[in-house]
Amino acid sequence: MDFKDKCIEHFKRDRFAKGVGIRLIDVSPGCAKAELELGPEHMNGADVAQGGAIFTLADLALAAASNSHGNVALSVNSSISFLKAAKSGRLVAEARELSAGGRLASYMVDVFDESGDRVAVMQGMVYRKKDVIPGLSQ
Amino acid sequence: MDFKDKCIEHFKRDRFAKGVGIRLIDVSPGCAKAELELGPEHMNGADVAQGGAIFTLADLALAAASNSHGNVALSVNSSISFLKAAKSGRLVAEARELSAGGRLASYMVDVFDESGDRVAVMQGMVYRKKDVIPGLSQ
Amino acid sequence: MDFKDKCIEHFKRDRFAKGVGIRLIDVSPGCAKAELELGPEHMNGADVAQGGAIFTLADLALAAASNSHGNVALSVNSSISFLKAAKSGRLVAEARELSAGGRLASYMVDVFDESGDRVAVMQGMVYRKKDVIPGLSQ
Amino acid sequence: MDFKDKCIEHFKRDRFAKGVGIRLIDVSPGCAKAELELGPEHMNGADVAQGGAIFTLADLALAAASNSHGNVALSVNSSISFLKAAKSGRLVAEARELSAGGRLASYMVDVFDESGDRVAVMQGMVYRKKDVIPGLSQ
Repeated sequence: MDFKDKCIEHFKRDRFAKGVGIRLIDVSPGCAKAELELGPEHMNGADVAQGGAIFTLADLALAAASNSHGNVALSVNSSISFLKAAKSGRLVAEARELSAGGRLASYMVDVFDESGDRVAVMQGMVYRKKDVIPGLSQ
Repeated sequence: MDFKDKCIEHFKRDRFAKGVGIRLIDVSPGCAKAELELGPEHMNGADVAQGGAIFTLADLALAAASNSHGNVALSVNSSISFLKAAKSGRLVAEARELSAGGRLASYMVDVFDESGDRVAVMQGMVYRKKDVIPGLSQ
Repeated sequence: MDFKDKCIEHFKRDRFAKGVGIRLIDVSPGCAKAELELGPEHMNGADVAQGGAIFTLADLALAAASNSHGNVALSVNSSISFLKAAKSGRLVAEARELSAGGRLASYMVDVFDESGDRVAVMQGMVYRKKDVIPGLSQ
Repeated sequence: MDFKDKCIEHFKRDRFAKGVGIRLIDVSPGCAKAELELGPEHMNGADVAQGGAIFTLADLALAAASNSHGNVALSVNSSISFLKAAKSGRLVAEARELSAGGRLASYMVDVFDESGDRVAVMQGMVYRKKDVIPGLSQ
């Protein structure tokens, strides 16, 4: 099993993201992509995708990108801007690393809809622990 | 049915929050409380509550507080800091209004665990539309 | 010289804040207050206080609150919402600690104008180093 | 005078940014660059560039980018992550528009040092008023 598949396998252990219907589709060191096919169960009272569903999608991409170096990284701060209401179709979140020098690392996550419009953008910071993730070391 | 009950009834239409298991427990003008009883389905791969579950809890309290004036309010920016890992028990999110002069309004949401420790804090901004929420006007 | 005076003295070494005209007026463990008397030099092109002046005021209160435990704390993430335009008079920033368990600590800073209205609110996270601040230990 | 020069001229009216020593060096619709040559007056008590100086630099680039369409745009929320301490040399902030559909628009600002390292990243949201900026219409 190559690195990408190991990561995808590892993150299936995230029961919340799985229950929401989010799938990790790509991982490379410092980067990750996740997708969510919107259904009625992701809607809020105004019939648009609930912010929490979009946040969870962005957060899984962030988690995969930041844990991709093989050490446990925990999200400590995330700032998300909601730019366009999403009602249906497939959303894709793309996380990329901006900085990862020391104990803290910083990421940007873009969430796009099927027409390529940006639905949300998230700036996330993680704390990197010394603990190694079993089965994910390269 | 009084105002608080009308609001609680209205937000049952948020299918995502409902599916996650979140319940609105109090609403007054500019304020709201919501709760989530953590179960295995809210955990991430590291066996702590997934950030998306906590965000969704905070977001529902924010939505109820910001829509409590009777007009549709949409979240445009939320910044959340995760302060303590939560593994089990009941989380409560309390949203309060900081400012609500014009088209934008600002909120702070604290999320506490059963021992009273702050699990997360969220700063949220909403955009207030002119549309009135049917059945929620006072 | 008592603790509060030691802190106030220490933060006079912040040349940028000093140049902007910001004064620390109170410090206790985890809390701090700073003030800024607005003048023409703090205005932007639209003749309201520039966001950077307000940020710097909030940031000095945050720095004093987070360094008040005697160890060097560095700001890593700050999210600021601007709630009301400020044109003149005295602004006061009040920082308080929300959480300070480990290497990271979290703060909320409110900025008020003379009429007691909230001009801005900032949520800040700092990284706490092991280095002790000379002359600030209690 | 072309559009870029008109913008640069217009933003000289930002007295705070000017006093800090920040210069706008490029503007095009939705984008802007500003620079700051660090000196002793920008340092905090720990002898690194104060967060407020870096924020003000990023904020001027954001203001120029968001006002570049000819209407008054006011910053309502900014989240900044400090990624690397800066001690001397020239910092450059580059703002780019992520979304600008309606009353709100969203921007990302990167701040780089002379070695090309990212010193800070800011995510900013502005509220766009109907007022036209005199002398800046295209």
